[in-house]
Amino acid sequence: MKIRLLLGVFLLFGFTSVAQSQKTLNLMPVPQKMDIKEGKLYIDSTFRLAIQGKPDQRIYSAATRFLRRLDEQTILWFKQDQVNHTDRDSKALLQINVQKPGKIQLKEDESYQLEIGTDKIQLNAATEIGAMYGMETLLQLLEADEKGFYFPQVSIKDNPRFAWRGLMIDVVRHWIPYEVIIRNIDAMLAVKMNVLHLHLTDDQGFRVESKVYPKLHEKGSNGKYLTQEQLKDIVKYAADRGIRVVPEFDMPGHASSWFPGYPEYASAPGTYQVETKYSHFEPAPTMDPTNEALYPFIDAFIQEMTHIFPDEYIHIGGDENRGLQWDANPKIQEFKKKNNLHSNMELQTYFNGKLQKILAKYGKKMMGWDEILEPGISKDIMIHSWRGKHSLTEAAQKGYPVIISSGYYVDLLFDVKDYYLNEPLEESHDLTPEQLANVYGGESAMWGEIVSAETIDSRAWPATAAIAERLWSPKEIRDVKDMYRRLEITSNRLEFLGLTHNKNYEVMLKRLTNGADITALKTFVDVVEPMKELSRRKQGITYYTYTPLTMVVDAARPDSKVAREFTWLVEDFIQKPTQELGNQIKEHYHLWSENHFKLQETMKVAPAIREIEPVSANLARLSVIGSQLVDYILAKSAGKLKPKNRMDYDKADKLTDEMRFMVKPRGNVEFIKIIDSTKKLLTYAVD
Amino acid sequence: MKIRLLLGVFLLFGFTSVAQSQKTLNLMPVPQKMDIKEGKLYIDSTFRLAIQGKPDQRIYSAATRFLRRLDEQTILWFKQDQVNHTDRDSKALLQINVQKPGKIQLKEDESYQLEIGTDKIQLNAATEIGAMYGMETLLQLLEADEKGFYFPQVSIKDNPRFAWRGLMIDVVRHWIPYEVIIRNIDAMLAVKMNVLHLHLTDDQGFRVESKVYPKLHEKGSNGKYLTQEQLKDIVKYAADRGIRVVPEFDMPGHASSWFPGYPEYASAPGTYQVETKYSHFEPAPTMDPTNEALYPFIDAFIQEMTHIFPDEYIHIGGDENRGLQWDANPKIQEFKKKNNLHSNMELQTYFNGKLQKILAKYGKKMMGWDEILEPGISKDIMIHSWRGKHSLTEAAQKGYPVIISSGYYVDLLFDVKDYYLNEPLEESHDLTPEQLANVYGGESAMWGEIVSAETIDSRAWPATAAIAERLWSPKEIRDVKDMYRRLEITSNRLEFLGLTHNKNYEVMLKRLTNGADITALKTFVDVVEPMKELSRRKQGITYYTYTPLTMVVDAARPDSKVAREFTWLVEDFIQKPTQELGNQIKEHYHLWSENHFKLQETMKVAPAIREIEPVSANLARLSVIGSQLVDYILAKSAGKLKPKNRMDYDKADKLTDEMRFMVKPRGNVEFIKIIDSTKKLLTYAVD
Repeated sequence: MKIRLLLGVFLLFGFTSVAQSQKTLNLMPVPQKMDIKEGKLYIDSTFRLAIQGKPDQRIYSAATRFLRRLDEQTILWFKQDQVNHTDRDSKALLQINVQKPGKIQLKEDESYQLEIGTDKIQLNAATEIGAMYGMETLLQLLEADEKGFYFPQVSIKDNPRFAWRGLMIDVVRHWIPYEVIIRNIDAMLAVKMNVLHLHLTDDQGFRVESKVYPKLHEKGSNGKYLTQEQLKDIVKYAADRGIRVVPEFDMPGHASSWFPGYPEYASAPGTYQVETKYSHFEPAPTMDPTNEALYPFIDAFIQEMTHIFPDEYIHIGGDENRGLQWDANPKIQEFKKKNNLHSNMELQTYFNGKLQKILAKYGKKMMGWDEILEPGISKDIMIHSWRGKHSLTEAAQKGYPVIISSGYYVDLLFDVKDYYLNEPLEESHDLTPEQLANVYGGESAMWGEIVSAETIDSRAWPATAAIAERLWSPKEIRDVKDMYRRLEITSNRLEFLGLTHNKNYEVMLKRLTNGADITALKTFVDVVEPMKELSRRKQGITYYTYTPLTMVVDAARPDSKVAREFTWLVEDFIQKPTQELGNQIKEHYHLWSENHFKLQETMKVAPAIREIEPVSANLARLSVIGSQLVDYILAKSAGKLKPKNRMDYDKADKLTDEMRFMVKPRGNVEFIKIIDSTKKLLTYAVD
Repeated sequence: MKIRLLLGVFLLFGFTSVAQSQKTLNLMPVPQKMDIKEGKLYIDSTFRLAIQGKPDQRIYSAATRFLRRLDEQTILWFKQDQVNHTDRDSKALLQINVQKPGKIQLKEDESYQLEIGTDKIQLNAATEIGAMYGMETLLQLLEADEKGFYFPQVSIKDNPRFAWRGLMIDVVRHWIPYEVIIRNIDAMLAVKMNVLHLHLTDDQGFRVESKVYPKLHEKGSNGKYLTQEQLKDIVKYAADRGIRVVPEFDMPGHASSWFPGYPEYASAPGTYQVETKYSHFEPAPTMDPTNEALYPFIDAFIQEMTHIFPDEYIHIGGDENRGLQWDANPKIQEFKKKNNLHSNMELQTYFNGKLQKILAKYGKKMMGWDEILEPGISKDIMIHSWRGKHSLTEAAQKGYPVIISSGYYVDLLFDVKDYYLNEPLEESHDLTPEQLANVYGGESAMWGEIVSAETIDSRAWPATAAIAERLWSPKEIRDVKDMYRRLEITSNRLEFLGLTHNKNYEVMLKRLTNGADITALKTFVDVVEPMKELSRRKQGITYYTYTPLTMVVDAARPDSKVAREFTWLVEDFIQKPTQELGNQIKEHYHLWSENHFKLQETMKVAPAIREIEPVSANLARLSVIGSQLVDYILAKSAGKLKPKNRMDYDKADKLTDEMRFMVKPRGNVEFIKIIDSTKKLLTYAVD
């Protein structure tokens, strides 16, 4: 009650984000239902947990990990070591009760209820998967004050909005080793995601060991592949965290890496190499669907993979096949005619049909990118929407199960808020309730063209945490500022767990300065962002798989906190141009204009950062203008404006426009938010 | 010639460390012979390498890695991709010539010659191992100026002083997973180390998979063990970098983890558990050497291990066996009498003899900690000296091959300079040249009681780089300040390679502040050090394997740069008490005294750091005194001293002494260098 009263007061004064934080605490994703009470439950070294009910064995290692993490955070030195089935003491502070063992499969019951009272914490769940989520929630609830560590007294009823909440990792385009996948699984559980989709084969590599056809990985991977033991270990590690693993073997296109070992299954004769480029190799090597020998080959490979991947789904890719090799092959043309296949898409659907039968033989369901949604394709195929939300709606309407990655491509480096606000189901959709049930969820998609093991976390995270919330929490949870508040906390916690998205930042800056002081470089890189939408690849520069990913643009973060908060500051200032806000803005501008000279000094001994010189110079120039604009606005609102000042407008306007479109070869970082904010000041000043 | 002239000038002005840097550049370890010329060889995107001669295949992947690392550092975007045997272009800038394939074995030829001329780099080596070292040297030589990246023109002839340059990693006491070992292998090659010694079994875990006796790892490891595939992969990864892998299976003591699965081989009946403590479990579980069934058991296990570890040496531990289980077992006592074995040591030597025969059967040589050096032990056993240098001398004199880890226990958290100056062969040794040849080298020893995967790098490194130099470079290279100069550069480079010794620091501080600002905590932790010599375990507190290692003491660095440089500053000031130096010292003191209040604010929301409150308070009190002392000294040297100031001495002296010996339960950090420096100021002030 008191909380509600307090909320009211805050709202009166416009403290919406404080009010929001009262509702969301530091949780990400936000639970379905939460009732926050007044009290605090303090913990000390006597903290113990007990497990009742009938959970799967995996609960015990999960509970042990929970204990260790809580102890690492509080350093209370708990007495309890490994948790096992004998830990049933009804006096333990944390009581976990699980109804039945969970299965690592789509649509398993993942719900849990968490009740933190005055002297007891009760965590109930249908399965141990829900219990694991409850433990993650509990870790997120931990707070501290002068008396010590405590859990706020809350009552939570929680379950996911969508059953499929995934992260796709492309381990092909750049080699992403085992340990990166492992640490990402830990992170996934922390934000209640439940599907790891591994993109295992593509033009640039065949990254899974095959014992049946060893030439696949031997000739198709430059020695960089996941062994079957590693993959089994990944599957177990994931299952122990409630996470399914869906493997993807991209067919019939994106398939170059199958052919160095087995050229006979390509649609053109010759020898094949693993691709080192990402495009411009049309006609792209493609499987020959008319070759009857292809199907037993795929059959034996799929059979082998079913021993590694227990999940009911296998993703067969199916995307971006233009079929130019097919067009050039008279035998294939003849086959199309003979079988009444009028287009390459129809030929691919023919191929998909054969593929689906192979999968079905091993009890597997097929899944593919939305291109496969063509007449004639079977209804139990999961469609993976990526080319736009229309394919989600279309699939659902036609009765196909569907998940969405459109709008969740984290490699495109959009702001977190863009991913966050990407609602799978727009208000305007006209799906029936039955059709709605076909929408299973979505996946954050971490494509690998422009990431390395060093940078991948900083592209996938923390954005993926926001996507996880979109897929778990009520649709109505969309307060952007509160999301960013919680995201920063979540981001730190994910690093405690082992992710590297922040900690590799300064290491990369140090490499760039060649050992020199990084202060000026950091000031610069803190405020810029890599170009959105993979634009760096659209500038006529060819990237190879071996192009170094250690540039300023690789270190720069996709959603600069400095730039974002500067934007907010300018918005506040335009709402109410006070001297104090004006000074804060000018401090930033001053920092950036002065920084350029310092950065030039660093450049003398750091050739690797010289290409950003024009960008830094422009930022400095813009900052001078911005600073004058603040003065202008302050003078104007104080009624002290001199008329001649109005002359600045055209020049400044032209300059900001130029900056927006300037060519940034290789350097590839931009400060578009600072340009936009400065433009806002300009517009406001002139109006 | 000009350099020599310049050197002379520097020396005249006392710039010894600049002069030193002219001789050592940024290299670690320093080469045996180096002639630095004047010119610079600039590189650009056309940089290519070619490989001539008859190397082992591993040179090609090594050369590819070299190319990628050089390109990552320079972002010149080299055109050359994977290097292979066709890369023999005599016009390539870097010419590598290798005489013959190297073998990954003790005493292989590791020498190389590197000649950087005006338009060509020639790297010659007997084997590709030497060539790999030459490439590491080349990477370390990379410098930059306003014109771009260049290599200084030098002529280097290099080979190691000792043939055995190792790092021992204890993966038992705390579980150290595969990827940590992998990144440490990369680091080892970067500083030209060639032996990875894996301590695989101990009381707290049996961390190697056995297919012959699966209960060993299944019951002895809590599921945390290296699989055979992982170990084979580690062996291959190491061999590809010129590094041998020596496995250690500790016997007959330190053996608790063998017995949960196979209690019948212990010296006392009963059931056994993996230990969770590090001591206080006497009588320690020990193998029963009188049980004839033990030897076939060990035989089959060793045979299995020989399929994983190709190296000629197997380390059998043999340390710290008091034999209390033997004393308590009448059957064993009877056996001793019957066989005329007068002590437990003699019984262990009997056991070792049997063990050695088993190893010999599989073509393996035995190695053990220096306790095994007892009458009757065979002459081809490698002695691993750890209890003091006397055992090195003793072994060498008696004709045993020997390596040393005494003085290289990096878990004891001594200053890097202490490890660095730990010369294996004192001037006073009276070894004949023949006996000297028995000394093969040494190993940095990273014991695992108080490290986790998160902290291990920060304990092993960068200290191990200094040890690597001690074992590689001429004995005369021992300039401490120049070592620290190069160490900092080396330390950064090791992080670029993947080590985490610096980058986990702030992550740990953030965890400690529970999300609050870390500035004040960082100021504090930057200047303190964890207690040396594992003293935190000597304070009557029991550490378990599951005690959290996320405390301030775990984040604190063993050799604080701030404290070290403060010490130097005070030394300089005492040499010449100028106002400028005095101000610099006072700035530090001021920072620390003010910091205490800021840190108290942080503590309000960060219970995990409250236990350091008294330490921070003492640092603040000391800083006030120190600051007064500086004023006193300045006044004194300016002849402006008032006599009453002399009264400060006793109080200040007493206080610093108290601080030195104050109890630091759990908190475990100290600022002994600041106390010592302040005491120096005190002594100087009073004199």
